[in-house]
Amino acid sequence: MEKKWQELKKRLKEIYDLQSVISLLNWDQNTYMPQTAGGARGSQLAALGRIAHDKLTDPRLGELLEELDGQWPSDSLEADLIRAAKREVDRETKVPADFVSRFYQNTSETYQAWVAAREENRFDKVAPHLERTLELSREYAHYFSGFDHVADPLIDRADYGMKAKELQALFGKLRKQLVPLVEQVTAGPEVSQACIKQHFPKEKQLAYAKQLISAMGFDFNRGRLDLAPHPFMIRLAHDDVRITTRVNEEDVTEVLFSTIHETGHAFYELGIDADLEGTPLHTGASSGIHESQSRLWENVVGRSRAFWQAHYPSLQAAFPSQLGNVSLDDYVRAINRAEKSLIRIEADEFTYNLHVIIRFDLEMAMLEGKLDVKDLPEMWRSRYQSDLGISPTDDNHGVLQDIHWYADFIGGMFQGYTLGNILSCQFYEAACRVHPQIPDEIANGNVSTLHGWLKENVYRHGSRWTTTELVRRATGSEMTIAPYIAYLKRKADELHLGR
Amino acid sequence: MEKKWQELKKRLKEIYDLQSVISLLNWDQNTYMPQTAGGARGSQLAALGRIAHDKLTDPRLGELLEELDGQWPSDSLEADLIRAAKREVDRETKVPADFVSRFYQNTSETYQAWVAAREENRFDKVAPHLERTLELSREYAHYFSGFDHVADPLIDRADYGMKAKELQALFGKLRKQLVPLVEQVTAGPEVSQACIKQHFPKEKQLAYAKQLISAMGFDFNRGRLDLAPHPFMIRLAHDDVRITTRVNEEDVTEVLFSTIHETGHAFYELGIDADLEGTPLHTGASSGIHESQSRLWENVVGRSRAFWQAHYPSLQAAFPSQLGNVSLDDYVRAINRAEKSLIRIEADEFTYNLHVIIRFDLEMAMLEGKLDVKDLPEMWRSRYQSDLGISPTDDNHGVLQDIHWYADFIGGMFQGYTLGNILSCQFYEAACRVHPQIPDEIANGNVSTLHGWLKENVYRHGSRWTTTELVRRATGSEMTIAPYIAYLKRKADELHLGR
Repeated sequence: MEKKWQELKKRLKEIYDLQSVISLLNWDQNTYMPQTAGGARGSQLAALGRIAHDKLTDPRLGELLEELDGQWPSDSLEADLIRAAKREVDRETKVPADFVSRFYQNTSETYQAWVAAREENRFDKVAPHLERTLELSREYAHYFSGFDHVADPLIDRADYGMKAKELQALFGKLRKQLVPLVEQVTAGPEVSQACIKQHFPKEKQLAYAKQLISAMGFDFNRGRLDLAPHPFMIRLAHDDVRITTRVNEEDVTEVLFSTIHETGHAFYELGIDADLEGTPLHTGASSGIHESQSRLWENVVGRSRAFWQAHYPSLQAAFPSQLGNVSLDDYVRAINRAEKSLIRIEADEFTYNLHVIIRFDLEMAMLEGKLDVKDLPEMWRSRYQSDLGISPTDDNHGVLQDIHWYADFIGGMFQGYTLGNILSCQFYEAACRVHPQIPDEIANGNVSTLHGWLKENVYRHGSRWTTTELVRRATGSEMTIAPYIAYLKRKADELHLGR
Repeated sequence: MEKKWQELKKRLKEIYDLQSVISLLNWDQNTYMPQTAGGARGSQLAALGRIAHDKLTDPRLGELLEELDGQWPSDSLEADLIRAAKREVDRETKVPADFVSRFYQNTSETYQAWVAAREENRFDKVAPHLERTLELSREYAHYFSGFDHVADPLIDRADYGMKAKELQALFGKLRKQLVPLVEQVTAGPEVSQACIKQHFPKEKQLAYAKQLISAMGFDFNRGRLDLAPHPFMIRLAHDDVRITTRVNEEDVTEVLFSTIHETGHAFYELGIDADLEGTPLHTGASSGIHESQSRLWENVVGRSRAFWQAHYPSLQAAFPSQLGNVSLDDYVRAINRAEKSLIRIEADEFTYNLHVIIRFDLEMAMLEGKLDVKDLPEMWRSRYQSDLGISPTDDNHGVLQDIHWYADFIGGMFQGYTLGNILSCQFYEAACRVHPQIPDEIANGNVSTLHGWLKENVYRHGSRWTTTELVRRATGSEMTIAPYIAYLKRKADELHLGR
């Protein structure tokens, strides 16, 4: 038995190493790779992908998992590890190789068509490709028999164990609360953002971002911050977690909040128990839990008045001519301005989830066969009108804005963002229940108690548990929108954003 | 047959991709990897190494090579490719896995002992490890039966086809010419290097190095220049060749000549025919040929008065307070100063090969059993005294200075440097014979004719031919030291370095 266990761990470690190398190839491609090397990089990624696939679908690995399954108590680390490994093997085995190649072929064509469609600002140019993506998404689901809803296997890819029905109910409740709240906060006079929309030199912004996340506890001996076209976090090893950011010289908030956001993701991966390295448990539990950490640090902490009470003086010192005469309150109001807008990634905390829920609902409707791809732009406009009171007059500001459907599946693409927002407040509230001093500490520039609670209750367990189970263990209750709604209402009141 | 050929190419391409990924892991480790990630990186490298080994020793690959061998004319590209692949497979197959692991174990221990020995400045602390390295080096050779000299299989690793006897004869002749030449050039009054040994800010040095190699034709769309503790060149793909450099803020020549040196290596790899990508021919022919290109660009071109006639104004513009009042002639004399010294990597063009030949001869003596490891420091001192007229009083300035023997084999470690110096002049002379305008063009900042000749006659052929064959094809004659000696004598005269 011990021998088989060691063989299993050895095989899993090799797969883990291969996946880490694939992460390095991706990181490099997005940061430092010379621009003409894309073709060769694709070939390297494909080679590693094939090898990792072969290792994951090696019959001997399946045998070992079968033989070892059930040998430990079901709540033991060993059982959790075997469960996670079986899930990964399962996913790699159930989907036929010919589907994978058809899918990648379609993705590549669809992505190119999307780029061209955006140039012409015409959804109809990419619609036939998206129809094929929808077919392939349904086909993918059917490789996983026994689902309740056709979207469930797609949701499982990012948020294992969450069900479409449950999310529809949760998001429905949230939407009902958000629509009037958005009305309220956007009814008052417009908050000025002039102070953050000045010229801020790139190098200084980057230097300040490094200084800020250092002060928050990001360990540059175990990670890096680099520039990339799109901010992301990627783990190469327990002691090698890299984040990227981008700089807008005319808006200092882009580097600040994208960096803090990715730092939240990095805190999670850096906080996983070192013992789990080399196993499939050494990763975040789900996209929802991951996003809860990026959002917690970006918004609940990073957009709070308390946080900037501690850090605004250093920001002013870095940019004296821009911010020297701007008060803390004006700055905090500027970084929290609520606005009805058309673009998800530019949305504030109040409106953000409405953007997400629209996409989630449209995904579900397409998968359920209730919405044709050709009718998507019209339905998009109608939902924006009803939820946000505005609607796009062109496709680039509507249905063509997000890459997700055009570079991956339809289904399971968006729920993580809103789950993350909901959970960011549920976790924060649970931490503050045990340590009521957390907000005061944040105002003094000390996030170590909060960090410690998150590490102990969330980070260190990696992907041992499902989202639902982790939430239950960490907070003592089921997932709930109450803390999130309370947080938004309190924020609206405190900042006098609406009246 | 065509089917088998395609299968062969596919298998070789996969191995090539894996080797490229290993190169990326190494590049990253030396440039941007967070400092605590070394353990994980070792594990990733080991995993990829094992997989590449498995692919190279797959019996099916051997079968294909056997079946396809002899099916094309022996001077065809196909035959060259099969020959190169067989050589690589051979090397990977003949050496037993248990030797490889004993060797790596010894290397790791020896390297650590060397670091400790340097701290104490005591060779005897590492000597027992080096004895083991010598045994292992001999053992390695014996896996390749039929050699003339025990060093031949070790030399083959870097300079395939070169024989110890032939190198001993060549280097003996060279040494005879160099010893009196060094006497001559170091006899005159000391040349001042004050102009290059001022404070030059790091960022400006790096910016100038980029500007300079751009002007020389280094294509940043196909490559990069980064900082690293030790300058090196590494190829990740036909369109992805990266070099690193280092900056000494108190000596501007370190960044200049290490960058030009690595650019020479990069020109070679970037100039290989794109058609060879994905095959074992898509690499430099040997360490000697590779070094001929780094040395040609660094020294023959980069330390010439003509080159700085074109570029000194831009260097002065980059550093006006340091060099604004320094004449071109004073600068050129400073960067060419000859001096008897103890450290190889700081040596000038006149003395450099004497350092190398000493090491080469000592390697040979150890392998032949004529020199015991314990007597190495004494023999080192005696050779420095006889060849350079000076000798180290401690081990750090003597036998402990170079990493090579302490991190690899004894044998085959040094000959490439001197072969490179010899060939740099033989190639340059051949190019100028066809294009006599090359020196004038260089003085006008134009290296395209030289570059074109090198690409056509050396670079584009990759590793199709052995060193000897390539020299014959490119220059029309056998390898000869005459152009190199003529070059050094001309340089000594022109610069009035000695009298």
